[in-house]
Amino acid sequence: MSNTIEFFFDFVSPFGWFAAERIGGIARAHGRNVAWKPLLLGVTVKRVMGLPALLETPLKGPYLLHDAERCARFHGLPWRPPTPIMFSSVAAARAIMWAVARGDLDVEPLVLGLYRRAWTMAGDISTPDAVADLAAAQGFDRAALRAGIECPETKAGLRRSVADAAGRGIFGSPFIVVDGEPFWGADRLEMVERWLVSPW
Amino acid sequence: MSNTIEFFFDFVSPFGWFAAERIGGIARAHGRNVAWKPLLLGVTVKRVMGLPALLETPLKGPYLLHDAERCARFHGLPWRPPTPIMFSSVAAARAIMWAVARGDLDVEPLVLGLYRRAWTMAGDISTPDAVADLAAAQGFDRAALRAGIECPETKAGLRRSVADAAGRGIFGSPFIVVDGEPFWGADRLEMVERWLVSPW
Repeated sequence: MSNTIEFFFDFVSPFGWFAAERIGGIARAHGRNVAWKPLLLGVTVKRVMGLPALLETPLKGPYLLHDAERCARFHGLPWRPPTPIMFSSVAAARAIMWAVARGDLDVEPLVLGLYRRAWTMAGDISTPDAVADLAAAQGFDRAALRAGIECPETKAGLRRSVADAAGRGIFGSPFIVVDGEPFWGADRLEMVERWLVSPW
Repeated sequence: MSNTIEFFFDFVSPFGWFAAERIGGIARAHGRNVAWKPLLLGVTVKRVMGLPALLETPLKGPYLLHDAERCARFHGLPWRPPTPIMFSSVAAARAIMWAVARGDLDVEPLVLGLYRRAWTMAGDISTPDAVADLAAAQGFDRAALRAGIECPETKAGLRRSVADAAGRGIFGSPFIVVDGEPFWGADRLEMVERWLVSPW
């Protein structure tokens, strides 16, 4: 049994954000650590599953936006979503891939910083420079991270990681894997906690 | 403010079942009653939303089946799903429409009886006769219910009800509306309970 909780997420997903705010604390409470694994839902949902983007899905899109705002209030989180609400998360995902691959960096604050910039400050995290600026403000080496976003290994690594995840049946944000057991959705965190104590 | 909680569900949806097992008790605890509103997801999901059936959706279909079985264990409910797992819920939905329209019948036990027959006994509830047999065993007038399933008013009423629901943005099972506020999913029942106490 690995000591790691795999946490798959896409920065375009506010539900991924809600779970990102909590998964680190849950892991620490159970002596686990988190493997932060950025997804690109645009690739998985459109190309692998053949579905439209969630927010462009009739009925479901408007509901999910309403639900996300209500969930933010429920959790006491600020809510100021980005404009446009559908943006490219590729640069941010690559930054996380690069930071994780480095191995000596604390990735969680960067994940949360990017999420909060996007969803509580209507911030733009869609460009490498915007991502690098935010990372630099957190103490990351701006030039190294900026170069890391663009380097071929990062790009290929993210492509491979997203494809591997889809190959394992992982399709949403957040998607959490604990000891091989898959959980989809921020509203599965209570089950994740129960599973960490005692699988049923 | 209406005293009624609208509970939309489709018998093909095990998540609708999990919520059906709880919504009556939640309503009674808050001095509310439940309006039982059968949906036909085949109509809403395919025709209105343009999506494939959930269970036929790549990645998501297999995950949801796994999740449903795990949820059943989590809630301490038996799990013996129907074969085939995708069946027509039209007859069962019409029976509920008819029973609700009568106005003097207790519909909740029939909803739960049909759900349990399908999902805990691998039972067939796809034909008018199967539905009528189950209803008769619960004390319903078999001949009246059997005729009610086939009568034009029931059929038209169900078509209209499903279309009206879609027109209001209702697309999933379970889907719960409390004082105009929409909640999708069995995992939103805790929020429904909170909303009944104090909207946020």
